[in-house]
Amino acid sequence: MRILLKNATVVNVFTECLEKENVLIDGDKIIGVGDYDDYSADVVEDLSGKYICPGSIDGHIHVESTMLTPCQLAKVSLLHGTTSIVADPHEIANVCGVDGILYMLESSKGLPFKVFVNLPSCVPSTPFDESGACLTAEDLFPLYEEKRVLGLAEMMNYPGVLFGDKDVLKKISDAHAKGKVVDGHAPLLSGRDLDKYIATGIQTDHECSIAEEAIEKLKKGQWIMIREGTAAKNLQGLLPLFEPPYSHRCLLVTDDRHPADLKNEGHIDNIIRRAVTCGKSVITAIKMATIQAAQCFALPYMGAVAPGYKADLLILDDLDAVSVRDVYVDGKRVVSDKKVEDIEEPPVASTLLEKVSSSCHVKDLSATDFCVTPSEGECRVIRVLAGSLITEEMRCSVDWSKGNGIDVEKDLLKLAVIERHGKSGRIGLGYVHGLGLKKGAIASTVSHDSHNLIVVGASEKDMAMAANRIVAIGGGNVVVKDGKVLAEMPLPIAGLMSNFSANKVAKQNDLVRAAVHELGTPQGVEPFMHMAFVSLPVIPHLKMTPGGLVDVDMFERVPLFVKN
Amino acid sequence: MRILLKNATVVNVFTECLEKENVLIDGDKIIGVGDYDDYSADVVEDLSGKYICPGSIDGHIHVESTMLTPCQLAKVSLLHGTTSIVADPHEIANVCGVDGILYMLESSKGLPFKVFVNLPSCVPSTPFDESGACLTAEDLFPLYEEKRVLGLAEMMNYPGVLFGDKDVLKKISDAHAKGKVVDGHAPLLSGRDLDKYIATGIQTDHECSIAEEAIEKLKKGQWIMIREGTAAKNLQGLLPLFEPPYSHRCLLVTDDRHPADLKNEGHIDNIIRRAVTCGKSVITAIKMATIQAAQCFALPYMGAVAPGYKADLLILDDLDAVSVRDVYVDGKRVVSDKKVEDIEEPPVASTLLEKVSSSCHVKDLSATDFCVTPSEGECRVIRVLAGSLITEEMRCSVDWSKGNGIDVEKDLLKLAVIERHGKSGRIGLGYVHGLGLKKGAIASTVSHDSHNLIVVGASEKDMAMAANRIVAIGGGNVVVKDGKVLAEMPLPIAGLMSNFSANKVAKQNDLVRAAVHELGTPQGVEPFMHMAFVSLPVIPHLKMTPGGLVDVDMFERVPLFVKN
Repeated sequence: MRILLKNATVVNVFTECLEKENVLIDGDKIIGVGDYDDYSADVVEDLSGKYICPGSIDGHIHVESTMLTPCQLAKVSLLHGTTSIVADPHEIANVCGVDGILYMLESSKGLPFKVFVNLPSCVPSTPFDESGACLTAEDLFPLYEEKRVLGLAEMMNYPGVLFGDKDVLKKISDAHAKGKVVDGHAPLLSGRDLDKYIATGIQTDHECSIAEEAIEKLKKGQWIMIREGTAAKNLQGLLPLFEPPYSHRCLLVTDDRHPADLKNEGHIDNIIRRAVTCGKSVITAIKMATIQAAQCFALPYMGAVAPGYKADLLILDDLDAVSVRDVYVDGKRVVSDKKVEDIEEPPVASTLLEKVSSSCHVKDLSATDFCVTPSEGECRVIRVLAGSLITEEMRCSVDWSKGNGIDVEKDLLKLAVIERHGKSGRIGLGYVHGLGLKKGAIASTVSHDSHNLIVVGASEKDMAMAANRIVAIGGGNVVVKDGKVLAEMPLPIAGLMSNFSANKVAKQNDLVRAAVHELGTPQGVEPFMHMAFVSLPVIPHLKMTPGGLVDVDMFERVPLFVKN
Repeated sequence: MRILLKNATVVNVFTECLEKENVLIDGDKIIGVGDYDDYSADVVEDLSGKYICPGSIDGHIHVESTMLTPCQLAKVSLLHGTTSIVADPHEIANVCGVDGILYMLESSKGLPFKVFVNLPSCVPSTPFDESGACLTAEDLFPLYEEKRVLGLAEMMNYPGVLFGDKDVLKKISDAHAKGKVVDGHAPLLSGRDLDKYIATGIQTDHECSIAEEAIEKLKKGQWIMIREGTAAKNLQGLLPLFEPPYSHRCLLVTDDRHPADLKNEGHIDNIIRRAVTCGKSVITAIKMATIQAAQCFALPYMGAVAPGYKADLLILDDLDAVSVRDVYVDGKRVVSDKKVEDIEEPPVASTLLEKVSSSCHVKDLSATDFCVTPSEGECRVIRVLAGSLITEEMRCSVDWSKGNGIDVEKDLLKLAVIERHGKSGRIGLGYVHGLGLKKGAIASTVSHDSHNLIVVGASEKDMAMAANRIVAIGGGNVVVKDGKVLAEMPLPIAGLMSNFSANKVAKQNDLVRAAVHELGTPQGVEPFMHMAFVSLPVIPHLKMTPGGLVDVDMFERVPLFVKN
């Protein structure tokens, strides 16, 4: 079927100009841009006063951060004009290994939303942790056969690169041998170390927070991904990159994006809008979000409104506001007048679905499982800092006369990280300060990067209940008070992703967050956010794993009690 | 071995800036650009006052036009800073088919000069001609397995594209299926026809002669190759393309380049220099000649001085003048102080070499083979126009009392095109006006695109001798006068390429050209240039083939004599 979109103002990413053109689509591609009349097509749409631009491409996103399946993500992202993403299934791979990557590919197959995948390079991200899988170069290699696999995702193990770790270098050289892209992740790396890192063939970076850092990396040949997500927001610091010559070597990415933010603020459109608000050219931002992402990943015939290109395009009511009215993907209209069409979940083989849906391998727990054996000496307590992923080590003496060290007056709560991948079954026990619970317990399977079961509570009984409830619902977030579940958000897919829509997930999340405050946590503190990172032993300073505390600065395990 | 090139001013193609940097090379690649000291390397070169820029890439050249083997071309091109070429072996393929392409690959293997190949898309270029081979999509397909094959070369059969010729479309889709680039060739195509042509996935064009044409093609997504060769010179007309936003989507190419011009004027350096003389930015021109060519053809880690990139780089005494002092290819210095190292011809399998070296399959000829059977009516004569490839049809009555229609007073010379590929053996006979020979004969196997044996003369006896001599030397150019060879240039490889160096070939060519003038041709007329195109039945208006005259405008064969 031929569709003629006439009288629109078309954003030309090659000439950086706006021109009134008619766009002719045949099947999945654009076959003409110019002087076409109504007789050229079966369907004619008059778009006077509207704009046409290419669909946005998010060059780096963890789908798991949205807590949505690719299909549900598609439904919300398409409304915001994102038609393609390059996903790094790092989280699900940490839980389910290759099966997690296969699930991401299967569950996004045939969607009217292009999900490309870069293979997670660092599973696990540290040997200190107990992940569900360990992916070697050999494990990853066969996956390059899948057409939608574009490369190797963020190589965050830069010490491994710099010290020439064999498996790390093999992962990189395998990607190159297959003609694929290797994404970088090297915050603040500079000078000779940066040269060494890049010289192995690492082509992008999305961790720049200041222009100086980005310009050094760009100068050395990396594509700079300007990241503006839910947690990390780098747009403001990288605004100078929106000017030539830098602008030609940049992309726009979200990295992680919370479903509520996706829904309310948007996806890549949000970044473009913010750049425009800061006085930057909308065409420059659109180029970054489209043709340049396509160039970076060598995606043929994507990212432009030109003959031969895929008909992935947006109809906008307003250009600067990126107000998306209609969206076409492969020539099919999937968003009409700001409403997305119904999209069915792609079928996933039942064995695969079963594997990713049974990710909580934890025995039935009771209050005693959360009891710390009293010991002499001061106790190391993890102190969370509001609005930061960094934690501090706090030392205090424990009053064993109170409930096994819990002291809500002093905001000393029990913390447990339970290995949930059916391996060691170990439970790391300790204390956390700064979350403010006065009662009950909260538990989650979203705890970077190994995503073990993490529980915080003022009561061991409620902790056991929360943990058991998590296992019963197959993973997710749970809030328990006095033996009763106050709220829960099931995340049955690997304990990371929901089956529900973005709307429902956002609502469930609101309810869970509200319930936490019923336990006494003051407004402004987000315990689930902190819990997600309290177990990540690559962020300073003190973290908890199933094997116990880790001093990240010393890069070693430390006991809970400091002997005198 | 590590080499440190220190204190040079480096051209950064990403930031478009010049910066004083030290460049560290390890093996075949650049591993650092920045603050490195002498202890970093085994060899240190102080380049104070010099410039470093990436080696030039010629995005489209017919090696055959240089009459040199890839090795001999390397020796002269390296001196001018060209380190890579994308060759279209269209000419040799028209003579030797797949063997010609294999020869081009074999004879360039391992050279310190990167020869990539695009597969000739149009062999033969027209069904009217009698070429040595006919290459179908099926013939080409297996050649994509060779890593140095980047795509399908100039698709000049645009009617075939527009009318949906199956084999033509198969050739294009095969290239795409293999992830390869398809080069275009569509002079003056515009509007809907251009859309249709481009929409099949044709990504480049090197036939633009005016800015308006180039901008239309660029706007529709094509990379524009700004061509400045020996025959076609488009730089002047395309100067506006050296400004942004257009400049980001352009390359520099020669298409065809005569050995004398290579030697005296240069290769890609000549185009950069000319652009600078016209007031254009040298950095913009260098970007076109380097990183943008690499982007267009998806050549990984080429075209920049940056970590991880191939150490293909130039040391210049002066930037604007592109005065090349040293050249490194894969980290090895191949030009030192304007002298190129000795490069050995890569070994070519003897059976293959034999095939391409025995391309003149013509029986022994005598004067009678050049006799036209007298007929009534006016004769169609090909009239060549000085400095043009276009020919006109001239009609005149023949005085049969004079030597079989030859009349040097009226500048009516005998013209023969002899099928030389061992197929039909036919001889197309007729007359040509405008070459000015008063005596003797000249013959050549360089006659586009089928490269049959073409002979022009004032004497059938000398014509036979010239033709026989050509066959004896295995192809080339020969000048005969009164039964004596005045000068000759052997081109034993497919009748198109010499074994000798650029210097020697240029000298031989000078001698051949001088000898022509001994036959009476006035200065300013270049009979061999005209002979090379008098047989190409795709350029207006009247051409000669072994099957006889072709009226190019009518696209049909016409008899030599016009019946009343």
